[in-house]
Order: sequence, then C-alpha cells, then structure tokens
Amino acid sequence: MTVVLPTIADARRWVKTERDAGRTLGLAPTLGALHEGHASLFRRARAECHRVAISIFVNPTQFGAGEDYERYPRTFESDRAMAQQEGVDAIFAPDVKEMYASPGEVMVDPGRLGEVLCGASRPGHFRGVLTVVAKLFHILPADRAYFGQKDAQQLVLIQRMVAEHNFPVEIVACPTVREPDGLALSSRNRYLSAEERSNATILYRALCCAESMLKRGVRQGARLEHEMQQMICATPGAELDYARVVDRWSLQPAELIDREVLAAVAVRFGKTRLIDNLLIAPQQ
Amino acid sequence: MTVVLPTIADARRWVKTERDAGRTLGLAPTLGALHEGHASLFRRARAECHRVAISIFVNPTQFGAGEDYERYPRTFESDRAMAQQEGVDAIFAPDVKEMYASPGEVMVDPGRLGEVLCGASRPGHFRGVLTVVAKLFHILPADRAYFGQKDAQQLVLIQRMVAEHNFPVEIVACPTVREPDGLALSSRNRYLSAEERSNATILYRALCCAESMLKRGVRQGARLEHEMQQMICATPGAELDYARVVDRWSLQPAELIDREVLAAVAVRFGKTRLIDNLLIAPQQ
Repeated sequence: MTVVLPTIADARRWVKTERDAGRTLGLAPTLGALHEGHASLFRRARAECHRVAISIFVNPTQFGAGEDYERYPRTFESDRAMAQQEGVDAIFAPDVKEMYASPGEVMVDPGRLGEVLCGASRPGHFRGVLTVVAKLFHILPADRAYFGQKDAQQLVLIQRMVAEHNFPVEIVACPTVREPDGLALSSRNRYLSAEERSNATILYRALCCAESMLKRGVRQGARLEHEMQQMICATPGAELDYARVVDRWSLQPAELIDREVLAAVAVRFGKTRLIDNLLIAPQQ
Repeated sequence: MTVVLPTIADARRWVKTERDAGRTLGLAPTLGALHEGHASLFRRARAECHRVAISIFVNPTQFGAGEDYERYPRTFESDRAMAQQEGVDAIFAPDVKEMYASPGEVMVDPGRLGEVLCGASRPGHFRGVLTVVAKLFHILPADRAYFGQKDAQQLVLIQRMVAEHNFPVEIVACPTVREPDGLALSSRNRYLSAEERSNATILYRALCCAESMLKRGVRQGARLEHEMQQMICATPGAELDYARVVDRWSLQPAELIDREVLAAVAVRFGKTRLIDNLLIAPQQ
C-alpha cells in the first residue's frame, strides 16, 4: 500500500519511523505526470533500498514567465496507481503553500553551470531546481536519490550541489528511456500534435548522427554541433534552441574530443520544448 | 576528553556513533579565536544536548578581497583547551582543502537580505557564510545549532535559510557577551590599539542611546539613526560604516517603530571593523 504524505510534518514522521527501524531510503523527486522513465527510477530504487519514497510536486520556482507551469499535466490519480504498481512506499505530495510557506529569499545558486544550455534559455530554472531539491533532501533525507540522465544538466548540477555542499546522499543516474522510434520519454510529449510527434524523433536522430561521426573519427565538437544544427533546422516545425557538444562535468564546449562528452539538444515544436542528450566517446 | 576531527569522514563517523546510540547533538560553528562569547554558546549546548560539537574553520569564502582572512587569529591550541574546559565533545577542524576539495560553483544565495547592512560593505560575505553553514549542517547534522546574537544579520539569514530550505535543525540564538564597559566580545577586538579599544565602546553607547530615546518616545527610526551616526562620527579614530534601525526579520528600514526592532552599527577603527546591535522596543 502506497501512503500519501501531504505535509512536511507527515513526511518527517514517516521517514523517522523507517530510519528508527534501521531501513534505508531511496528517493525519486518528480513533477508527476509519471511515465515509464520515472518507473525505471522507482524500480532501481526498489532494488537498492528498503523503502522507496517519491515526491510529486510541480515546483513553481523552476518555471519562468511564459513557460508551461499552468498547463503542466497534473495527473495525480494515475500517478498514484503507477507508484503503487511499482511498489513505491510513500508519495510526498505537498501543495505550493506547504512547500513555500513564506516568500523565498534564500536560494541555491548554480553559478556558471546554470547559465549554459537550458540555463541560457530558461533563466532562473536551475536556481529553482536546486533549491527545491535541497528542500526535498532535507525533508526526506534519503540514502540514495534517483534522477534520469534525460535531464543531463539538472543531473550534473545536482551532483555538483551534493558534492560541494556535502549532502549525505548518493545520487544515482538512470538511463534515458525511449519510445521504439528513439524519442526520449517526457511528460511534455503529450503536448505534441501527431505531426510534431512524428518529427520529434529528430532530437535522437541528430544525437545518433553526432555519435556516429565521432566514432568515425570526427573529433571537432564544432563539426558535430554544426551537423546536428543542420539536421534540426531542416526538420519541419522544429525550432532549434541549442545543439551542443560539451564536457560532461564542466558543461564547457568540447573543442577536440578525446574522452566521453555530452551531446545535448533542445528543440521547440510550437510551444513545446523538448530536450535530449547522449554521452558519446571516440572509438578507442 | 575532546576529540579533534580533521576530516569530513571523521566527522561523519563520529556523528553516526552518537546518533546510533540515540544521543542528541548540539553544534556551534566558529572561526576559532574563541572567547567568552563562544564559551556561552558551548555551555548552552552542553545544557540542552547529549553531545556538543564545535567547528573551527576560518572560511575563506566569507572574506572579501582586502579583508582580514590572512591575519585572522588562528589560536588552535588555546581554542582546544577552552573547548575541553567547557565540556565540548568534538572539534571539527578541517583545512581549506578538506572543505573545498573542488572549486565551488554552487553557492547558497542570501537574496536581498544579504545586500543590506554588513552585506552592503562586504559583498559576497553572506553567500560564503550560508554556504559553509549549509555544508556544516550536512557534515554534522545536529538537533540544535548555536549562534550569537552579536552577528545579528548572520543569525537572521541562517534562520531564514533553515526555515526556507527545511533544514531539520533548531537554531538557538544566544545573547551577546560584553566586556564590563559594554564592548561586545569579538575575535577582532585583539587588533585594537589601547586608544582604539578605549574608543570602541562608542558602538554600545550609541546603541544604548538609541534604546533610551525609543523608550522616551522617539519612534522615528531615522532620528535614532541620526543620533547614533552623530555620536560615532564625533569619536576619535571611528569611521562610520552604518548605524541603522531595521525590522528584525526583513532588515528593511523601520520608519515608525511600533514593535521590537534591530538597532545595528558597524564602525571601523583603522583596519579593524567592529559590529554590534541591540534589539530595542518602545515602552509599552
């Protein structure tokens, strides 16, 4: 039976009981609108921890003006059913007032890593993400926390925050889950029209092309970027946000590639912004 | 016997042993150069918690360029003797490399509360303070953490960070300890020449004057500020940084005072910057 914890006090009580019994805890923070990508996190947590908690919270501070905070899908009943199905023990599902009782002044600042890639097009996004994740780690102190590789920059920033601020939690990165045609699962895919959905495979195809060029010996990051940009710009309805090849930890441009790097793309279809990425390495 | 913990791993092991035994922990973060003000924190912690840990760490990220990071007093042996005397169980005393293994990108940003008072003259100071305090709270998760009212803005910011980021710790504010002539104890008092030391009582005298004016019915914050500024500027060798009367939580100017407010002053004597404050309230 999956228990729903609507308040911070409920969450603290639940964790204390589990901790006092000596059980380990895995946490997977989510915005809800759960799909198979989330389920893969829950299963991994289930395999590695005595208890699994997830959070479902559409965090307003990580959405900018004009973004999709209002229309972001809220599907609590089906989310709960899926969590139950996957053996999740607890769902922390606070409302906005519970999470932000007073107007927030103190924020976690991602620094320069928050200014590139998605941070360039979504100013303030990663401040909101890191701040809410810090809050969740304090409310539900877990042994391990599970995040998808799909949100690569978010993952790097959370890993940096945890390392630099000495959070006593291990971050577990889980592989991106894809549709059969390669499209990365995302709660935002449901916004796409049939035509957009069909064209949206360009993100993964561009990334795969960069990977195969690199395997064939093209080691200049700029050439891989150029090829991805061309492919995306040639796709009907696709508006390029970025297509970059960067160091996987510093997120700075990878000029001549001699190790594993992050190829990352962001593309808009109408109002819908999709992201995807691959870790790619030259042939040894 | 007071144990010294030089590494983060040592600190985590020590805390785990105490936690597993069901003991509560009090923490008092310090920069060392301990004096009777610190001792009062340790005694309070001693009275309220099973175990008391302190940290001694001159945190480079809270000192600005041209400030006294290099010459800040480092007096570890006498600090250890005093901690032992006061029944402190553990001293976490990392070096800079241990605390900042990689160059820090992610910081805790105090927002607007970090831009006024001391934050205006010491840009970046409170980012450094909040970030290191967050790290200490993650390394030595305590039930209660003890801070002096002497550093009033630091105290408010830490209270805000703990509340807004849901740190599972109770912040205990302890009264300022003073010399018989009113000078607030500070590790920086030792920098003062005999003459500066004698004139440095102006901080407390100015604050007491503001308090007595308020008790006599002068409720305009600006008038209290003006009086304090005049007194400080008339003191030989004293260079006014600020003399303000502000709301004790928002740190915004208190115009017409109808509740307890914070009177706060900062004054330079040569290279030495001293601060002091009083919580003052109108006569009921």
